[in-house]
Amino acid sequence: MVIEPPYLIFLGDVPDALAAKTGLGIVDWRPEWCIGQLRLEGCKADAGIPDLSVEEAKAKGVQTMVVGSVNAGGVLPEHWIASIVSALEAGLNVATGLHVRLASIPEIAEAAARGGAGLHDVRFSDVKFATGKGTKRSGRRVLTVGTDCSVGKKYTALALEKEMRARGMDADFRATGQTGVFISGRGAAIDAVAADFISGAVEWISPEADPDHWDLIEGQGSLFHPSFAGVSLGLLHGAQADFFVVCHEPTRTTMRGVSHALPTIQQVIDQTITCGQLTNPAIACAGIAVNTQKLNEGEAKTLLEALARDYGVPASDPIRFGVSPIVDRIVAMAGTE
Amino acid sequence: MVIEPPYLIFLGDVPDALAAKTGLGIVDWRPEWCIGQLRLEGCKADAGIPDLSVEEAKAKGVQTMVVGSVNAGGVLPEHWIASIVSALEAGLNVATGLHVRLASIPEIAEAAARGGAGLHDVRFSDVKFATGKGTKRSGRRVLTVGTDCSVGKKYTALALEKEMRARGMDADFRATGQTGVFISGRGAAIDAVAADFISGAVEWISPEADPDHWDLIEGQGSLFHPSFAGVSLGLLHGAQADFFVVCHEPTRTTMRGVSHALPTIQQVIDQTITCGQLTNPAIACAGIAVNTQKLNEGEAKTLLEALARDYGVPASDPIRFGVSPIVDRIVAMAGTE
Repeated sequence: MVIEPPYLIFLGDVPDALAAKTGLGIVDWRPEWCIGQLRLEGCKADAGIPDLSVEEAKAKGVQTMVVGSVNAGGVLPEHWIASIVSALEAGLNVATGLHVRLASIPEIAEAAARGGAGLHDVRFSDVKFATGKGTKRSGRRVLTVGTDCSVGKKYTALALEKEMRARGMDADFRATGQTGVFISGRGAAIDAVAADFISGAVEWISPEADPDHWDLIEGQGSLFHPSFAGVSLGLLHGAQADFFVVCHEPTRTTMRGVSHALPTIQQVIDQTITCGQLTNPAIACAGIAVNTQKLNEGEAKTLLEALARDYGVPASDPIRFGVSPIVDRIVAMAGTE
Repeated sequence: MVIEPPYLIFLGDVPDALAAKTGLGIVDWRPEWCIGQLRLEGCKADAGIPDLSVEEAKAKGVQTMVVGSVNAGGVLPEHWIASIVSALEAGLNVATGLHVRLASIPEIAEAAARGGAGLHDVRFSDVKFATGKGTKRSGRRVLTVGTDCSVGKKYTALALEKEMRARGMDADFRATGQTGVFISGRGAAIDAVAADFISGAVEWISPEADPDHWDLIEGQGSLFHPSFAGVSLGLLHGAQADFFVVCHEPTRTTMRGVSHALPTIQQVIDQTITCGQLTNPAIACAGIAVNTQKLNEGEAKTLLEALARDYGVPASDPIRFGVSPIVDRIVAMAGTE
């Protein structure tokens, strides 16, 4: 599956930036690929790049319009179809991570046929996964886990890859969600895999590697989220993580999309170790990554210092302060084994 | 989805009875629907019903051939295709719970078209599930959980339904696997649902009900199985079980299909409560169901007495001794709330 850049990022008319996290994530990590954004009236998300029509985007060399916003459950709202049809009629490819195949919508299938453009459904993999075996694979693996959905698990894994590569380490980000697949050009959207194959798909995404190779595996959901914990557990078992980093958003009071309270960081550490030991008895916590966007710099530093002290591992905001202390810890812990 | 009885049970040439558990389960719970079995040379499974050719089955009034054996991963072996084609050519419908759609195999699609017969892929649901919400639903729910796959979770849930109904209680078995769907004519094969929708599908399978209604929900896999734990966790969260029954096979040393050791019953109880409290804080263990097939009656009774004493809940073999003590316990515990 090749998604051809450069991209026009379609954000629709979503009510907040979280719902546009796919589009915003692509812009953050691949700014050179993102020529512009297409937003509908009322859109509350903004990627900070030029607003372009499909015709303007085409004139600027865009190859693919990526649907960068998503509804709960991955449904395609009726009123987004016209935008997709006009992109296809302008000759752009269209890529989405929705739970519905684009070609299953007749107007879209017909427009794609007329425009000669490609449809990419990132959530529908043609790979035939095997069931997970839990057999130890060579290579080193770090998994990002979370107290909730949308707390920076992908960002943290990408930041770890960037920092490790800057140090000359052999490191690869491994995508398990639609945005990660758009950013890295490979991987699989694990939440769309048939339930029997969750851990098996992760074994495929992060295959056997050289003993000194590091995979930075993107986590999904939370072991404590009533909608998605099954995905998180299969992902943990398939990852066979040597180390995990707990990702957290400190101002959130209920888990995304439901009324349940967030677990504590300690609960996440304990449950991740308890469950993760099934496929890697040596699993250990290597750090805490906090999204401190809603705190000022002083508040953020105070919080991170308190977390580092309380949990005995480095705590940082990957966007604001980088992940250098977490990589230091991973290197130190790996070296003493 | 309606699977039309009576059935011819196709067992293929599987190496053991466990691989034929779908077929054997249908025969056990719906003997009146199962006119005969079709086995290939070398088949090590036997449902104890007449061996019939497709022509003989057709002459005896069979409507549907159910593929009652399965390989790891749900793959359809090449050499079973000829049997399916001949059944279709004889005018029988064919139903399977494999991970591949029958119509995706050209020879089968053509034979179905020629014979005018129907193809039923139980693992492919046309229902559009929502993501799980974890919101408490009215009605009472019992979930069967396990120390491994294939330890009697479906049998136990069906036996609980039978015993509760015999006592005049309002009780329904809720199928989450292919065999259960064949037996009850409804439900969904939860292991084939897209990973994001595991708990949501269970909320659909066991919907809101009268306060005195009991759902007996079929469990899948094990929280400790490295291939399938994600399914088990999503199922536990979606079920919001008031009570669970731990199912166990005492002679097994490694988990089915992998090299991992079985968890202890205590580990399963503890982890089920820890995880299950997320969507039902009152979840409690109501019994242990042991498949004692490989023990003699004296050994079985000794084991069950020891388990009941050690864990403080009734322990029984549902096939050998019934589930009456477990239903007694459920009724007593439910009455004191």
